[in-house]
Amino acid sequence: MTSKSKIKHIPVEMHILSENDQLAAENRTWFASQGIFVVNLISSPGSGKTSLLVETLKALKGKLKCAVIEGDQQTDLDARRIAETGIPVRQINTGQACHLDAAMIKRAVNELAVAGLDLLFIENVGNLICPAEFDLGEHVKVVLMSVTEGEEKPLKYPLIFHLAGAAVITKTDLIPHLRFDIKVAESNIRQVNAKAPILHTSAYTQAGMQDWLGWLDSERHRLSKSS
Amino acid sequence: MTSKSKIKHIPVEMHILSENDQLAAENRTWFASQGIFVVNLISSPGSGKTSLLVETLKALKGKLKCAVIEGDQQTDLDARRIAETGIPVRQINTGQACHLDAAMIKRAVNELAVAGLDLLFIENVGNLICPAEFDLGEHVKVVLMSVTEGEEKPLKYPLIFHLAGAAVITKTDLIPHLRFDIKVAESNIRQVNAKAPILHTSAYTQAGMQDWLGWLDSERHRLSKSS
Repeated sequence: MTSKSKIKHIPVEMHILSENDQLAAENRTWFASQGIFVVNLISSPGSGKTSLLVETLKALKGKLKCAVIEGDQQTDLDARRIAETGIPVRQINTGQACHLDAAMIKRAVNELAVAGLDLLFIENVGNLICPAEFDLGEHVKVVLMSVTEGEEKPLKYPLIFHLAGAAVITKTDLIPHLRFDIKVAESNIRQVNAKAPILHTSAYTQAGMQDWLGWLDSERHRLSKSS
Repeated sequence: MTSKSKIKHIPVEMHILSENDQLAAENRTWFASQGIFVVNLISSPGSGKTSLLVETLKALKGKLKCAVIEGDQQTDLDARRIAETGIPVRQINTGQACHLDAAMIKRAVNELAVAGLDLLFIENVGNLICPAEFDLGEHVKVVLMSVTEGEEKPLKYPLIFHLAGAAVITKTDLIPHLRFDIKVAESNIRQVNAKAPILHTSAYTQAGMQDWLGWLDSERHRLSKSS
């Protein structure tokens, strides 16, 4: 791109981001007024967001009222997996877009039954880059990386790891079959994020699920005390 | 986003794409004039692009003159892995950008020693969405998906699987440890791409490497005959 097209491009992106930020702030205020804790799950495609979500929803059933917004470029495959748990779910297909935005969330929330809801999970489009830049009005971003992706992802895609309130290393049951050093992965996360808890989970063996559920619960109570 | 900001946004994106397409066409013409076959590798983060590339470069050493352009948001970790093979490599850090573009490739090629080069590999930023939309002037796009990502990725991210000249299913050594049905994955690729060869590889066990190298060789010869 020439500098001419860059000069043209930047103000428009800024305009869109600022409009998105305003809508995200409106979403956040509304969620707070309803007492809904909102978690935005972000990872590469295939890191196990939906699997973690399905196990989380099963564990919380009867304890908290949950709902899910699913973001994908195409298909309602993930929404169907969530629907099997009996939890209300709304699929957003972004078409060519590489991330969810605050306006999409506002529309989806209007179409979900949210009365009395405690917890809303947003599963973003599988992408470590673009979703990091768009505030949806969530209370916390959670980044996932699977053990099969290698240790260096936090350094190569630092923004989302920097912004995350928690980092979940998934598919830990596969570690014995890989050359993956979880201590190196954790140290790489620490290079871009000094304090977010780092959790280890396997949706397959259920290892680490109690730590993850415990973190969710403490974050939700922290929010309700501060608002 | 309101319709107002959409109307503002679209012409600028079109302008950038059309400028990119023009530069990509110039790159393609120049590559053809030099007899350089150019492959653009695209996948999610952690699908094994660099590992496949390292094994490919080792196998081609002494047979073909290769070079590599590495795209990442941050770090030169992948370029260092490639450099260990002794093959010329140039790292592009895209910063916030979620894909390589034709102008970046033009600049990187100017900085690489390309005299007498047979094969240039471009490893795009780890992202199944945005890189699909930007022509770099390559001769063929290759999409990779690892067996750990699940069978449905071609349906959820159809554009890149549709555009690819070959689809490589990687990390096949892990299949015994997963609930992954390779026939379902292949059938999903076929739903969006009727004819691209589907290859299976494991950079760890070397399984499928001969098929992959054979495909690369036949594509390179097909190109040189048609130009």
